[in-house]
Amino acid sequence: MPSYTAPTKDMQFVLHEVLNASQSGIPGYEELDRDFTAAVLEEAGKLASEVLMPLNAVGDTEGCVLENGVVRTPTGFKAAFDQMRDGGWTALDCDPAYGGQGLPYLMNTAAMEAFVSANMAFNMYQGLTHGAYSAIAAHGSDEQKQTYLPNLASCQWTGTMNLTEPHCGTDLGLMRTKAEPQADGSYKVTGQKIFISAGDHDLAENVIHLVLAKIPGGPEGIKGVSLFIVPKFLVNGDGSVGARNGVSVGKLEEKMGIHGNATCVMNYDGATGWLLGEEHKGMRAMFTMMNEARLGVGLQGYAQAEAAYQNAVAYAKDRLQGRAVTGAENPDGPADPLIVHPDIRRNLMDQKSFVEGARAFTYWGAQMIDRAHRLDDNAADGLISLLTPVIKGFQTDKGFEMAVAAQQVYGGHGYIEEWGMSQFARDARIAMIYEGANGVQALDLVGRKLAMDGGKHVMAFFALVKDFISESKGQDEAFDRDFLEPLKAASKDLQAAGMYFMQKGMKNPNAALAGSYDFMHLFGHVCLGLMWARMGLAAQAALKAGASDAAFYETKLATGRYYMARQLPMTRTHLARIESGAETVMALSAENF
Amino acid sequence: MPSYTAPTKDMQFVLHEVLNASQSGIPGYEELDRDFTAAVLEEAGKLASEVLMPLNAVGDTEGCVLENGVVRTPTGFKAAFDQMRDGGWTALDCDPAYGGQGLPYLMNTAAMEAFVSANMAFNMYQGLTHGAYSAIAAHGSDEQKQTYLPNLASCQWTGTMNLTEPHCGTDLGLMRTKAEPQADGSYKVTGQKIFISAGDHDLAENVIHLVLAKIPGGPEGIKGVSLFIVPKFLVNGDGSVGARNGVSVGKLEEKMGIHGNATCVMNYDGATGWLLGEEHKGMRAMFTMMNEARLGVGLQGYAQAEAAYQNAVAYAKDRLQGRAVTGAENPDGPADPLIVHPDIRRNLMDQKSFVEGARAFTYWGAQMIDRAHRLDDNAADGLISLLTPVIKGFQTDKGFEMAVAAQQVYGGHGYIEEWGMSQFARDARIAMIYEGANGVQALDLVGRKLAMDGGKHVMAFFALVKDFISESKGQDEAFDRDFLEPLKAASKDLQAAGMYFMQKGMKNPNAALAGSYDFMHLFGHVCLGLMWARMGLAAQAALKAGASDAAFYETKLATGRYYMARQLPMTRTHLARIESGAETVMALSAENF
Repeated sequence: MPSYTAPTKDMQFVLHEVLNASQSGIPGYEELDRDFTAAVLEEAGKLASEVLMPLNAVGDTEGCVLENGVVRTPTGFKAAFDQMRDGGWTALDCDPAYGGQGLPYLMNTAAMEAFVSANMAFNMYQGLTHGAYSAIAAHGSDEQKQTYLPNLASCQWTGTMNLTEPHCGTDLGLMRTKAEPQADGSYKVTGQKIFISAGDHDLAENVIHLVLAKIPGGPEGIKGVSLFIVPKFLVNGDGSVGARNGVSVGKLEEKMGIHGNATCVMNYDGATGWLLGEEHKGMRAMFTMMNEARLGVGLQGYAQAEAAYQNAVAYAKDRLQGRAVTGAENPDGPADPLIVHPDIRRNLMDQKSFVEGARAFTYWGAQMIDRAHRLDDNAADGLISLLTPVIKGFQTDKGFEMAVAAQQVYGGHGYIEEWGMSQFARDARIAMIYEGANGVQALDLVGRKLAMDGGKHVMAFFALVKDFISESKGQDEAFDRDFLEPLKAASKDLQAAGMYFMQKGMKNPNAALAGSYDFMHLFGHVCLGLMWARMGLAAQAALKAGASDAAFYETKLATGRYYMARQLPMTRTHLARIESGAETVMALSAENF
Repeated sequence: MPSYTAPTKDMQFVLHEVLNASQSGIPGYEELDRDFTAAVLEEAGKLASEVLMPLNAVGDTEGCVLENGVVRTPTGFKAAFDQMRDGGWTALDCDPAYGGQGLPYLMNTAAMEAFVSANMAFNMYQGLTHGAYSAIAAHGSDEQKQTYLPNLASCQWTGTMNLTEPHCGTDLGLMRTKAEPQADGSYKVTGQKIFISAGDHDLAENVIHLVLAKIPGGPEGIKGVSLFIVPKFLVNGDGSVGARNGVSVGKLEEKMGIHGNATCVMNYDGATGWLLGEEHKGMRAMFTMMNEARLGVGLQGYAQAEAAYQNAVAYAKDRLQGRAVTGAENPDGPADPLIVHPDIRRNLMDQKSFVEGARAFTYWGAQMIDRAHRLDDNAADGLISLLTPVIKGFQTDKGFEMAVAAQQVYGGHGYIEEWGMSQFARDARIAMIYEGANGVQALDLVGRKLAMDGGKHVMAFFALVKDFISESKGQDEAFDRDFLEPLKAASKDLQAAGMYFMQKGMKNPNAALAGSYDFMHLFGHVCLGLMWARMGLAAQAALKAGASDAAFYETKLATGRYYMARQLPMTRTHLARIESGAETVMALSAENF
């Protein structure tokens, strides 16, 4: 059975030594001193290890069950959900006006990492609720806020997002669900939505569905889509839970993973709903939550890899098999532990260097979101909009790949469900698909974000990397060679790719889009390279200052060197693919596939 | 529900236009003319599409069940197995003296591809039987051959391979199962074996286990391991099935995939067995089957990707979502099919170019095995020994990756089990693990095969590539540029990596082993590059000769160009990783992971 311990020391390192959280001048960040964040992360880690992790396999094995139209969650989920709610974990960064703790999103992100590592399917119930909270907080009327936000913040009620229909996922303009206006200002919502995570369950007393639908007579396509609040149970005037609304679970999907989360077909049959935000501006309302939601999915990618990695390391130290090629390291035992073998180390270092780099990238992203919201910083807002598809797409692809790599360390046992490594891979797989499949992230990045605001944000990113390199170099020859030079080379590859798109994409948009996926990965490597250079610098500073825990910082430097030497060279292959253009990609007519 | 059609035209192209099977001068190959192989492949394809494919999801959903100590296979498996047996498909390349058809292994390989694509779990029952057949054919006494081979060839009885024990997989020297000699020349076998595929089932009247065990008093470690024949039911003097032997199923494993195949814990409790081959030479006996078995697993990698690809293509043509960036291609419909989008094409071309390249590589490997066996060709034997870990390791890694890529085309539907794409990925995953995990393949390649016979075989491979290039070039400028130059560059990367190992590996074996996995993949890309150049040449020749089906050959050329432009650039990243050496890989002490 796998175990999990929150890597609080690594988390603290990023928060304080890389991001300098409490010194960053963002309102609310002054609270985030070392002791405070340590206390929060310790407690979150405890809940994750002791309560959520033991339920991870239970959720996978039992799954959710649809009985008499109501979803029953796996054994133990309800008690754990109560515990999470009672501990205030669902409202860390919610508005104190609605019962939240008002902490920065960065703090919420770090705490969530532990919950997602320990039990991704379970944490989705509150993750989706947080999304609904944010949408209503941003677009709701005062009355809607009063009615829904306190109960969503506390997870007395949970929330969902209803976008997809059987015939449309990415292309929501094809939507058929309709919302007919009623005399009392409400709407009757009718249609079928699919893939609704946490669509129904027994963890809370009400489920607040946010539903995209078309008001008849509105504009065609995506411009005629509006967003509605459709509660499972109508809410009485006094705020209490009232009559059952016309929404029901049509089916519970059998999935590859995240069995502990109920993925529902939801049928709306003249259900009563209320417009959230403006008519026909439903997509805009959805998109305001997108950066956070996608960052949350990018977090799932590396958080699952972290949990898988921890178990792979334990197995590699424990399992005796073969002898080190340079001579026995466990001469008194029947064999050496797996971890002596170079290829096992290569595998583990791939995982470790990815996970730690991705953590820094994600926390940095969360800090940018706070900067955008709390300082109205447009530059931060633009930069995180640019980087969001990279965080989502790159980190979930790599997170899955690394969970598969961790599974591989177990040999045959990795394929047996009992050992738990298969679940990490199966659960991680969904993150590449939902919240916009990764191909759509690449399209968003290259087709929209690169050119946004005249290309200002990507230029800002290049300037940021350049400035970082010029400010950091010349102090330590080895650091320049091991960290800054590879980062510079990778960044040049990224710029060359951007240049290629500018030159060719004008004439032939396919030339850019054929390279979009490689560009997303190239960008991801440069970001993780930047993160490792920043972490390396922080580690060196700590060592120079005589930090007591030298091994910790030496390990950071060694792991960073690995990433630079072994992962960053991927940028040249991505660039070569991009520069090969669209011709070979588009050559075949459809019937020749 | 997924479907599958055997790609007989692609198979025929490789057999006849690339490998020139019937002209290759290998005894038995003269039978393999176009009409004959077409007839065999048509029939195999029919069985695969009509009988095996519909059972693929059944096998996954129902799985095997252990009832009263006996394994029950999924609904329909028994009837399908009878049909496969009655059609003579289990004995295509078996010795006519034992009821086989005596066809080349190449023919068997091509037919098996269709069965594996359609239902990998099902085909393993006969695949493992074939392995047992080969072992007894190579090492058995005349009496053993007479007793077992006819029934194994026909699959009246099936076979298993028993290597792994709970505490040892790769490191079989740690084995504890013992075989105590009896007065009558038999042995009493006692111990526990795990991960025994097809360990028990209801498809045949007997199961013939080949079991590795130690004879007490023999040499320590791997040198004291012998191989035994241990039938589930003892065989009477007249060849009929007799009393139950002391072997039983301890447990049926719950796995990530291949649910239709029974993976058993087998308990041997003083079971009667007979020595196969010589005492203490069990590993050698096992290894004689290794090239074939590993090639068979490498085939599973691309065969699963082929089935997944076919369904991804169908979905991409059918599903309407979004508009082509260059203007609507389905203006009368609500949206364009997915296949118009460049990133969907990139994904499909990745799959297509891999699968077709891997097919050629695998058939070429099978031809080398025939050459080695039927012509006693040591050069072919050496070359296929070198390439076997590449076929197994590279193709199963890529095959899984491509099955995951095919799943991605389906978006959310890819994650729902009902659509069947998850199964391809879950089933393909095992091929990276069994028959020697891929890290062990890389170790075998770099630690053993490169230096085998003084490095003669790798030098022969380089010479082969070089000769091919110099013989092919200068006829067509575009071909030289698109095919030969990328192949040459990739081959140079491979040589540079080999040189690096030679120079550094002497002093520090870790320097070679830290790069072993990248070397295996680098080698794989060069092999597929070579295959694509050969296929491109064949396609050009057909076009020049005025072939009627020009689109088929143009598609081959376009797909080859894609591989060269988009996949082959991976060699430079693999080389960069290899040349970064062991330092970053081995830097951490175990406690710092």
